[in-house]
Amino acid sequence: MILLGIDPGLRVTGFGVIEKEGARLRYLASGCVKPGADGSLPERIATLFSGLSQVIATYKPDAAAIEKVFVNVNPQATLLLGQARGAAIAALTAASLPVAEYTALQIKQAVVGQGKAAKEQVQHMVARLLNLSAAPTADAADALACAICHAHGGLGSLGEMTRESWGGAGFRVRGGRMQS
Amino acid sequence: MILLGIDPGLRVTGFGVIEKEGARLRYLASGCVKPGADGSLPERIATLFSGLSQVIATYKPDAAAIEKVFVNVNPQATLLLGQARGAAIAALTAASLPVAEYTALQIKQAVVGQGKAAKEQVQHMVARLLNLSAAPTADAADALACAICHAHGGLGSLGEMTRESWGGAGFRVRGGRMQS
Repeated sequence: MILLGIDPGLRVTGFGVIEKEGARLRYLASGCVKPGADGSLPERIATLFSGLSQVIATYKPDAAAIEKVFVNVNPQATLLLGQARGAAIAALTAASLPVAEYTALQIKQAVVGQGKAAKEQVQHMVARLLNLSAAPTADAADALACAICHAHGGLGSLGEMTRESWGGAGFRVRGGRMQS
Repeated sequence: MILLGIDPGLRVTGFGVIEKEGARLRYLASGCVKPGADGSLPERIATLFSGLSQVIATYKPDAAAIEKVFVNVNPQATLLLGQARGAAIAALTAASLPVAEYTALQIKQAVVGQGKAAKEQVQHMVARLLNLSAAPTADAADALACAICHAHGGLGSLGEMTRESWGGAGFRVRGGRMQS
């Protein structure tokens, strides 16, 4: 099963593609679509939509997961982020992908074991969980983390294999149940 | 030239299709896509996107115009509206339509002659400008008004023919220039 994770943004939208085979996760691809800061909003939306559509056409995922976004202190920024996320979801559903949504807290909980983890921790754990030789960029890492979260069935249903490796990241494993 | 106007919303997105031939405007169609209040956000976005894609496939517009939306007092509502608008723009650009944006103020100015016109006034003037026997619903009227605004080249460049009929709606015509 191939999963596509999305970290939406109007300036940069990160994407990550992983393959799930039983409890094993395999890295396939990651990167960013950059609508940039120039151009009209419709032009930026068009770039975002066609970029993600290309990613989908290339990697043919079976399902997608996208990060839930939060209301910003700046209402105008909230409006722009909302429009980027709407266009990203449109690209996913236009390709008939089922779309799951996870909060940043759920995603961090799933890959790092605590909801308030720093960006660097997420990058580090994503590299570890996917056996990458180097940490991905922050946007790609967040997108991969979102895909990993979905692969684990969302919050709290992590596979045995990965659970093991998390001993050092703030987890205790007791009687087969995880506690943070 | 066929123009598609959009009044975006997550619960209801209005659309209006008009034909422009010189200074003459002709009504072609109008209506709503209703993603509704039930279902997940991705489901609602999917309904909105495919509904608008169907409208585009049916009426084959040459260009589109969409209302600019404003930051709401409720930040969560701003986020939802933003996502609906992003998906709507994605549907327009995915069909390779050039997309213009107008504020509610510009649209009202274009069809009623003043930016603070009531919804009923917009409905009334849209019906008059397009020779409709009855006023369209508010959502459809706003979308048609957006298309009319675009047909007039945005704010302040109204065609001679329509200018004439606006004498009673708060306008004075003086020396060929319009004043509100």
